[in-house]
This record gives sequence, structure tokens and C-alpha cells, in this order.
Amino acid sequence: MKKRDILTPIGIGLGATMILVGIYFNSGFGGVTTFIQISSIVVVIGGLIGALMINFNMTELKLSWRIVKEVFNKSDHNLRELIQLFITLSEKARREGLLALESELEEIDDEFIKKGVYLAIDGIEPEVINDIMNAEIAAMEERHRKGRMIIEKAGEYAPSWGMIGTLIGLVLMLNNLESPETIGPSMAIALLTTFYGMVLANLVFLPMAGKLAGKTEEEVFMKQVIVEGVIGVQSGQNPKILEEKLSAFLSTEDLKQPEEVEEEEELAGETVNET
Amino acid sequence: MKKRDILTPIGIGLGATMILVGIYFNSGFGGVTTFIQISSIVVVIGGLIGALMINFNMTELKLSWRIVKEVFNKSDHNLRELIQLFITLSEKARREGLLALESELEEIDDEFIKKGVYLAIDGIEPEVINDIMNAEIAAMEERHRKGRMIIEKAGEYAPSWGMIGTLIGLVLMLNNLESPETIGPSMAIALLTTFYGMVLANLVFLPMAGKLAGKTEEEVFMKQVIVEGVIGVQSGQNPKILEEKLSAFLSTEDLKQPEEVEEEEELAGETVNET
Amino acid sequence: MKKRDILTPIGIGLGATMILVGIYFNSGFGGVTTFIQISSIVVVIGGLIGALMINFNMTELKLSWRIVKEVFNKSDHNLRELIQLFITLSEKARREGLLALESELEEIDDEFIKKGVYLAIDGIEPEVINDIMNAEIAAMEERHRKGRMIIEKAGEYAPSWGMIGTLIGLVLMLNNLESPETIGPSMAIALLTTFYGMVLANLVFLPMAGKLAGKTEEEVFMKQVIVEGVIGVQSGQNPKILEEKLSAFLSTEDLKQPEEVEEEEELAGETVNET
Amino acid sequence: MKKRDILTPIGIGLGATMILVGIYFNSGFGGVTTFIQISSIVVVIGGLIGALMINFNMTELKLSWRIVKEVFNKSDHNLRELIQLFITLSEKARREGLLALESELEEIDDEFIKKGVYLAIDGIEPEVINDIMNAEIAAMEERHRKGRMIIEKAGEYAPSWGMIGTLIGLVLMLNNLESPETIGPSMAIALLTTFYGMVLANLVFLPMAGKLAGKTEEEVFMKQVIVEGVIGVQSGQNPKILEEKLSAFLSTEDLKQPEEVEEEEELAGETVNET
Amino acid sequence: MKKRDILTPIGIGLGATMILVGIYFNSGFGGVTTFIQISSIVVVIGGLIGALMINFNMTELKLSWRIVKEVFNKSDHNLRELIQLFITLSEKARREGLLALESELEEIDDEFIKKGVYLAIDGIEPEVINDIMNAEIAAMEERHRKGRMIIEKAGEYAPSWGMIGTLIGLVLMLNNLESPETIGPSMAIALLTTFYGMVLANLVFLPMAGKLAGKTEEEVFMKQVIVEGVIGVQSGQNPKILEEKLSAFLSTEDLKQPEEVEEEEELAGETVNET
Repeated sequence: MKKRDILTPIGIGLGATMILVGIYFNSGFGGVTTFIQISSIVVVIGGLIGALMINFNMTELKLSWRIVKEVFNKSDHNLRELIQLFITLSEKARREGLLALESELEEIDDEFIKKGVYLAIDGIEPEVINDIMNAEIAAMEERHRKGRMIIEKAGEYAPSWGMIGTLIGLVLMLNNLESPETIGPSMAIALLTTFYGMVLANLVFLPMAGKLAGKTEEEVFMKQVIVEGVIGVQSGQNPKILEEKLSAFLSTEDLKQPEEVEEEEELAGETVNET
Repeated sequence: MKKRDILTPIGIGLGATMILVGIYFNSGFGGVTTFIQISSIVVVIGGLIGALMINFNMTELKLSWRIVKEVFNKSDHNLRELIQLFITLSEKARREGLLALESELEEIDDEFIKKGVYLAIDGIEPEVINDIMNAEIAAMEERHRKGRMIIEKAGEYAPSWGMIGTLIGLVLMLNNLESPETIGPSMAIALLTTFYGMVLANLVFLPMAGKLAGKTEEEVFMKQVIVEGVIGVQSGQNPKILEEKLSAFLSTEDLKQPEEVEEEEELAGETVNET
Repeated sequence: MKKRDILTPIGIGLGATMILVGIYFNSGFGGVTTFIQISSIVVVIGGLIGALMINFNMTELKLSWRIVKEVFNKSDHNLRELIQLFITLSEKARREGLLALESELEEIDDEFIKKGVYLAIDGIEPEVINDIMNAEIAAMEERHRKGRMIIEKAGEYAPSWGMIGTLIGLVLMLNNLESPETIGPSMAIALLTTFYGMVLANLVFLPMAGKLAGKTEEEVFMKQVIVEGVIGVQSGQNPKILEEKLSAFLSTEDLKQPEEVEEEEELAGETVNET
Repeated sequence: MKKRDILTPIGIGLGATMILVGIYFNSGFGGVTTFIQISSIVVVIGGLIGALMINFNMTELKLSWRIVKEVFNKSDHNLRELIQLFITLSEKARREGLLALESELEEIDDEFIKKGVYLAIDGIEPEVINDIMNAEIAAMEERHRKGRMIIEKAGEYAPSWGMIGTLIGLVLMLNNLESPETIGPSMAIALLTTFYGMVLANLVFLPMAGKLAGKTEEEVFMKQVIVEGVIGVQSGQNPKILEEKLSAFLSTEDLKQPEEVEEEEELAGETVNET
Repeated sequence: MKKRDILTPIGIGLGATMILVGIYFNSGFGGVTTFIQISSIVVVIGGLIGALMINFNMTELKLSWRIVKEVFNKSDHNLRELIQLFITLSEKARREGLLALESELEEIDDEFIKKGVYLAIDGIEPEVINDIMNAEIAAMEERHRKGRMIIEKAGEYAPSWGMIGTLIGLVLMLNNLESPETIGPSMAIALLTTFYGMVLANLVFLPMAGKLAGKTEEEVFMKQVIVEGVIGVQSGQNPKILEEKLSAFLSTEDLKQPEEVEEEEELAGETVNET
């Protein structure tokens, strides 16, 4: 079962609450209603969607919808278990031959590992396995990049459309200066679109694009470890050396483990000669 | 027959409508006429064209005209059919020899595939085929890049020229403050050029450049699959392995297929060990 | 004889005219004189020159002067003729030997081709020829890059110095608010330096730097074709294959030819399977 | 024992003091209290934290906390001693064999050197040692990069959230223009959030990210020297040549030594022919 | 003896004069005194220094001081003489053997050439010489880059701190609107910090960083020619071919020579077929 990434809704909630708190402290509940202005929202969101429709094609737009949902899911990687799996596979392959791995396959859930081990059992050459699996990683990265790009572009267009809305409001207000008492509220409404654009960019689109980029990096990293592992298993590499090699990857991730204290030690002590 | 890319006109229409709605909700139809100001349009568009004429040469400017029309066309690639074609060609070549492919050529519409297969039949070495076809891809990419660059530059110059127009208006208004009742409308007109520049950049040029970049990427991708396929066919690669190799490319595109649901599954499940 | 690049002066003229039209439509001829303010021009241009003198050395500053003049010259490349020349040379070299090319050299005007063919006749190895000629291309590219960088930096400093001038004007005006009737004109003068800076950047420096970059790209491209051709001739490559190879370059440039219509066809039809 | 990097607290203190001095000189102690506005601080800090929670996952957020503490520690590298160590090891290895290095290991504190020398003693091939150690360097660089990225992102979001807070204040103020005497103070409060955002970015986040980047560069550099040294020792390279090779690295760091005067000479005299 | 680079002080002087002229033309000498405001200078300079202290460590800060002095020195390279030197060395080495070069060494001032020739005489292999000398070039480049980065960062922080100072001034002014006659001067003082920040960035830091980058490029270029020359001499390359190779570098620099007119010809005539 997938876990929820609770940080994303908490972050959005926190940002939104802080804005409400800022408004409430200044002007009470009356102030909050001031910030809801349908026609301003229509200009920013509508213009933004228009720009994105020109900028991307249908396939990409659909993709972005699916990608956005990903932001609320927590990836659940465990690098230690993965390394352990490959050491087990490597030992078995050296003892009983590559074909013996077939029985292990049923216990592996991950499709990417399965495919790699199948290729190894089929006796495909290591370079070819490397090519095929890396092509798949590159394709996944590319697919994620495209979905993320839409969110990034939304983060770029949002403040611009906010400014376009503000310019509309300012031009209309300046043409109608006769009643001085309406200048203030008119200008307030004009500034609201800039406010919407800035909030959309800095609370929704840009942070989401950041999280998606981090997720993609994590996926690619895990899959690279798998490729390294599959090739190590097939080439009959010594399990000790394979462990040494794969453990080099470990340092990026093992922060999740209880050894965190030790890691902290290490990070603080990455000096060469301590005297 | 070419299909129309309806997203581009819909996007432009949506953006323009949203702007009109924003204006109408604030000031009715009277407000809309305020936003048509010939002399401001002249400054932004004229200055922009002037800058582009200095920035590019005649060949490039003509190219951009043709490129802009491309934004309204929908590219109609089918990667699955393409892979199927190369598997068929590969099987035939292994059974009957490369020369037998000559009869298949008439059924292929695409000039790039045709050229590749001809080169293969002619017995040109794989590396040379690779060089020639990649040089052509690079040339196409370069040609597209140049056409797109004009649109991108237009997107950069437009807000700057909008600001130049606004500065002209402000300087003139500030020199003529005697009649206070004209200050508002004068400043409104001054701000209009910034508005034009922003809309041109964020509704027309930047999104269009984005779509053109996506189209080029798609072209390059399809052509790379073709190169891979032609070389696979010529080198007499096993059709199964060729399919495996080409299918790695598939994941980026197969989102168009009914299997989309499965794909969604996969995207959500790109974790390594799910417990 | 060199042809003039009429686009550059037309572009500058058009931009300047549009600015004048914008002013005239608002305030008639009186408005135009408002925009001539010697002390503002002095701050922008003087500050800009000062910054460039610190940023570059004498050699580079002299170089920029020569480079600026280039913007008004039209490059007159003909790739088709160039390819034809190398096919002729290639055929002659295969028939009569490399030494026979000596008689052809007198009819070649271009120094770079001449040098390459001399190296080929001298029996220098292809890799060495490649190294020497590419070093020369790199040196040319570097020289152009340096000259262009000054124009680019001018385009970066100009708006900043415009803003510095405006800040000077604003500070002085704010210190002297006693006479309200001078506030408007003082602020107008203050804004003029920003106006000058923006026009210099967006009508002169940035577009010029763009054109210079395009020219350099074109030069490099032509010279790379020449290197490819010289090496093909020396290595006694089959003229047919040489033509095939060099023609791959052609697609970028042949837009200049009457076949443009066909090209348009091709560009629109760069899809893989059209059904 | 770790030394404190006193520059970081001094820098923060200096910047904060300068701000206080600027305020005090203008308005005395009364002015300082004006700059403390809880609701503004809440919007900037809260919004910033919200954005970072969406942008990163829990592992990364924890990492950033540890990384921030690093900013206050001084790295204590000594390249000369390091080179001397490898010359000693190299001489011993040539005289008594690689196994003799085992006795030296106890005197080495640094884990990375220890691991390298162990690998060398174990007779692992140089390429494999190079791969393993460089993978570890890359992993460390990656870990540091991630921690630093949070600080960098904070430096990007801070001014944007400052502006969002200011927009909130402006909108509220403009809606409530009846009491003209409150306009000034309301706008002052509105501007405070921009002030907070700018100070956070330019006094805290961006300079800290800069220092972290410098620290990472230094670590990577030292570790690369170690890799070079370990491989030199194992391959039984002549200690003189090893010294020559490692000393090339020295020039970046030896500025810390008393020879600084000589270095200055050299830096000033990096001309080719002085006549 | 080192020559002074008079362009740097002239540029700074010119920029400063232009600012003074701009002020004087508007408000006479009285205006100039308005622009000296100690507390504003304290905020910009102090905040800037604080940010740099956090951003860099002591070694780097000291380095920047030495680097800044370099901006006022003129580098005095002569590529022609350098090439001539290597042709002479090459001829001597072919006639009398590499050892005969020892007597020439005393006449060479440049430490980098000396080191290279020593390595050649010692019979070190060309690849090793190449590695050692390029490592030294890379180290020099790195050292220069670090020193320059401080200046570049100063150019980034200066306008931000200027804006922070202006925000301080604005907040204080807005809190104290009772006496309308002080609004103007207070706002003038507020804007002064932005003015200081912009002038520091655009007249001092950014142009200086530009000149330092140019100097580094020149150093690296000369040293690469030396490496090429030393290896050519050692490998006993034909002096004619060595000259040909090194002369390819010449085109970037020979602009300093009287042949400049010819060069201009060449630059204008870099077309392929002139008809």
C-alpha cells in the first residue's frame, strides 16, 4: 500500500493559514472576504490555463494531471534491503548458476528488478543489459521531466498573468478617477491578481515542481543501483566487492536508518587531519 | 492529411476571453474600448519588429513565418506502428536478405525511413549510415531551433518595448501636469503599452516557443528511433532483441494508447520494495 | 564586393520612427524635444563607457569597434557552390592525383579553402589537417565571441546606468519639493535616463549582439563544411559519398534557393506515418 | 577538536548591527521597535516554511538542519601534511612492500584515507579503487548538494513571501483609506515583510548557501588528492613524480602558508615574457 | 617591470565624473553634498561586508584583496615572441638533442616555460608532462575563479543591500508622515542606498569581475600555447609543423601587431565565395 506524503498538504495548509493569520491580525474576518474576488481569480487562472494549452499538447497536459497527484504520495524506497537482495542473488548465482535465480523471481515485486534478472538469466550480454535498462531509466526520467515542466511553466506564467490582471485593473481605475473614494478599493482589487499569481507560484507550482524533481532523482538513483546490481550478479562478481560497490551508494540514503547519529559524526568529521 | 492542433487557437481564445471578462466585469463594454489604443500598439509592435530585424537576417525571418504556422498543426506520430514496421523489415531482411527490402519501400511514406533503408540496401556501413542520418537530424534540429529562437527573442523584447512605451507616456504626462483631470487617463494609456507587451509575451510568444520546442523534441525522438531501427535491420539483429530495444523508447509515448490505466499503475508504483 | 545588410539600418530606423510616432501622436513635435536631454544622455553613455573601460582591455575595445561595423555587412555564403567545388576537386584528385589540385587553387578566392587544399597537397595526415583547421575555426569563434561580449555587456549595463541616472534625478527632485509645479518635469527628466538605457539595450546592443552571434554561427558552419570537404578530398573518398555527406549540411541553408516551396512541404511533413 | 568558524557569526552580527545603526541614525531607539512586527514575521517565516515543506521531503528537511550547523564550523585541512603523508607511504611501500603500510594505518585518523589504503593493501586493482573512492566522493557531494539546496531555495522563496506579505498589507490598506492618518503606518507595516524577506535572503540564506558550496568544494578537492595519492602509492609510482603530481594541487591551498609573499609575487608575475 | 592598466582608473574616474556632471547640471554643487549620506553608506557597505564574511572563508577573503589589485595591472603577453622561442628551442633540440636546451633555460624568465622545459629535458613522457602542466593551469584557473567570485558576489549583494537600506528609510518615513515637508528629503535619503548599491555593482564590482575573467582567460590561453610548445619540442616535431600549429593560436592575439589592417581585411572577408 502507498503511503501519503503528509508534508505536501501540511505545507500548503501552513502557507494558507499564515496568509489568513496575516490578514486576520490586520483587519479581522472582514479583511479575509476582501481577498476573494472572482473576476481576478478568473483572469489569473484562465490566462494561465490558456498559456499552458498553447505551450503543451494534449498528451502532456493529461500527463501533468497524473503527475500532480504524485506530489501527495510518499515514495517508500529501502536501499539497504535492495543491496541485501542483490548480495543474496549474487551468492546464489555463484553457487548454483544464473538459472537458479528463476525461483527467486516470484518473491520480487519490483518490475524493473524482475526485467533485469530475466535479461541476466537469458544470457544477454552485460553491455546490452546496461543499454536496455539505462534506456528505460532515461525514458522514465524524460516522462517525469515533461510532466514536471508543465508545473514549472505554470510557476513562471502565474506571476506574469497576475501582473497582466493588475495592469487591467490599474488602467480601468486610472480612467475613472472622478470618484476619489473608489480609488483605494479599485487599486486593492487590481493588486489582488498579482497576489493570486504570487501565491500560486510560490505556494503551489514552484514547490511542487521542486518535490517532483526530488522524486525523479530518487527513482533514477534507485534504478541505477539496480542496474549496477543486476550486472554485478550476471558477471559473477565477488559478493564482497559487489557489496562494497553498492554500499558506496548507501551513504546518500542511509540517513533514514537509526545510525543517523553516527552519520552526523561523519558529516561533522569530514576533515582530513584533525589535530 | 494534416490535423489541426486545436489546443493552440483554444488557448489563445481562452486567454483573450479571460482578459475581456476581467475588463467587462469591472467596467462593462466601455472598459473594453479603453484597451484599444493604436499609438501604443504601434510602439510595441513596431519596436519589436525593428529589434527582430536587427537581430536576425532575412532567411531567418522568413523561416519564422513558416514556423509560426506549424504551431497550429498537430503532429501525428505513431511509435507503435513504427516499431512494428521495423520488426517486419528485420524479419524479412533475415529471411530473404537486405535486397528484398526494396519491394517494401514503396509502401513507406516517410522520406527519412526511405533514405535510411536505401542506405542499408546499398550496403553502406552502419557507422556511416549512423553518421549521415544523425547529421540530418542535427540539421533539422538546428533549423527548428533557429525558427524558434525568433519567437523566443520576440517574447524577450516584447515586455521591454512595452516598458519603453510606458516610459514615453509617463515622461509626456509628467511634463504636462497642469490639467490634473488628464493625469489619470494619460497614465492609463502609458500603462497600456506594458500591458500589450506582457500579453504578447505571455499569451503568444513564450507559449508558442514552448510548443515549438516540444514539437522539435518529438521529431528528434521519432527520428532517433528510426536510426536505431535501420541500423538494427541492416546489422541483421535478432527481431526479438530489436523489439526489446525499440520498446524501451515506447514508454515515453505509449501514453496515447488505451493502456493508459496500466501506465498510471506503473507510474504510481515506481517504488522498489513495496511492503 | 561586399553587400550591405540593409535589415540592420532599417530595423534601427523602424524602431526609432515608432518611438517618434508614439511621442508625436501623444504630444506633437513639442513632445519630441522633451526627449532630448543632454545631461541625461551624458550620464547613461558616460557611465556605460566607464563600465566597459573597466570591464575590458584596450585590444578588446578596439576589436568591438570593428565588430560593430560588421553588423551592417551581409554575409554572402553559397553552400551549394561550395559543395559543388569539393565534388569537382574530389573527382579531379581521384583521376589525376592530389598534386593536380594545385592548378585549381588559383581560382579559389577563399583563404581558408586554399590553406586546407595546400595542406592536403603537402600530404599532411588527415588528423593533423583536421586539428590545424579546427584550431583556426576555434580561434575565429573566440575572436568573434570576445568582440560580441562587449556589445552584450553594453546591453546589460545600459538599463542599470539608466536606473542610476533616474535615481540621481529622483533624489534631487525629492530634496527640492517646495515648488510643486517643477515636480512633474523634474520627474520626467529623471525617467528619461531609464528610457535611454532601455532603448540603447533593446534597440541597439541586444539585437546587434544577436545578429553577431548568428553571423559567427554561419561562419563556423561554412568552415566546418570546408574541413569535411578537404578531408574527404584528401582521403580520396568516393565523390558520391562525399556529396551525400556534405548534402546533409545543405538542409540548413538551402532555404535560400528557389526550392523553398518544396522545403516548406518537407517541414510541414516531418511526421512519420501520415494516414 | 573542531574549530569554530567565527566569520559566520561575525558576518551576521555585522549585517544586523549595520541595519540597527541605519535605523538608529534616522529615528533613534523608537525606530527600532517599529521594525518588530509579529504578524509580518509570521507571514514570511510561516509561508517560507510551508513552501519548503512542499518542496522537500522529511529526510531532506532533517538534513538541512544538520547542514546549517556546519556553517559555524571551520574546516581544518592541511594539504602539505597530506602530501607529505603520501610521500612517506609511497617510500615505505616501495622499500618494504604494500603490506608494510598496515602498521602505518593506526596513525591515520581520516576514515577516507584509511579505506583507500586498506583497498590498496588488499590488492584491489587501481581502476576499481578509483571507481569505489570516486563513487564515495560523488555520494558525499550529492548529500551536501541536497542539504545546500534547501538553503538556496529558502533564499529564493524568502523575497517572494516578503512580497506576498506586502501585497496583503497594501490590499488591506487600500480598502480602508477613510482615515488618512493611518495610511503611512499601514504602508510601513506592509513594506516590513518585503524587508524581512530581503534580509533573510541576503544576510542569512544566500551567504550561507555560498559558504556551504565552498566547504563542499574544499572537501571534494581534498578527497581527490587522497584518491590520487592512494593510487600513486599502490601503483608503486616514483615518490618524486608523485610529489610533483600532488604539488600541482598545492597551489590552490598553499596560500595559507608563510610563503604567501612569494605567491603574491608569482600571481603578479604570471606573464610570459617580461621585458 | 609591470605596466599599469590605465583603463581601469580612467573608467572608474569617467563613471564617477559622469555622475557628478549629472548632479551638477541639475542642482549645482549643493546637489553633490546631498549625495553624501554616511548612514546610508554604512548600511550598504556594512551589510555587503557582512554577507561576504558569511559567504566566504578567511583564505578567500584575503585572496580577493590581492586579486583586486590585479585589476590595475596590465598583462604584457607577446604571443609572437613565445612562438619564436619554441621554434628556436625545437630547432636546437633536433640539432643537438634535448639536453642542449639546458643552456637556453637561463635566458627564460617565465617559470611555467622553465618547468616545462626541465620536465622535457628530464625525459618525462609527453602525456605525463601534459598532465602535470595542465593540472597547474587548472589550479591557477581555480585560484583566479575563487578570487573573482568574491567580486561577483559583491556585485550581486550590493543592489540587494541598497534595496534593504531603502526599505528601512521608507518604513521610517511612512511612520512619521506628520510633517509633510520632511517627506521629500526622507525619501531622497531612502533612495540613496539603492543608488549606492547600483553604482557599486555597475561601476565597481561587475566590471572588475569582467576584467578579471578576461585576464584569467588570457593567462590560460598563453599557458596552453606553452604546453603545446613544450610537448612539440620534446617529441622532436618538425619546427615547420610546430610553427603551423602554434600559429593557429596566433590569430586571437596578433591584433596587437601592426598587421591589424590586414586582419581587418580578413575579418571583413570571412566569406566563402565572393562574387
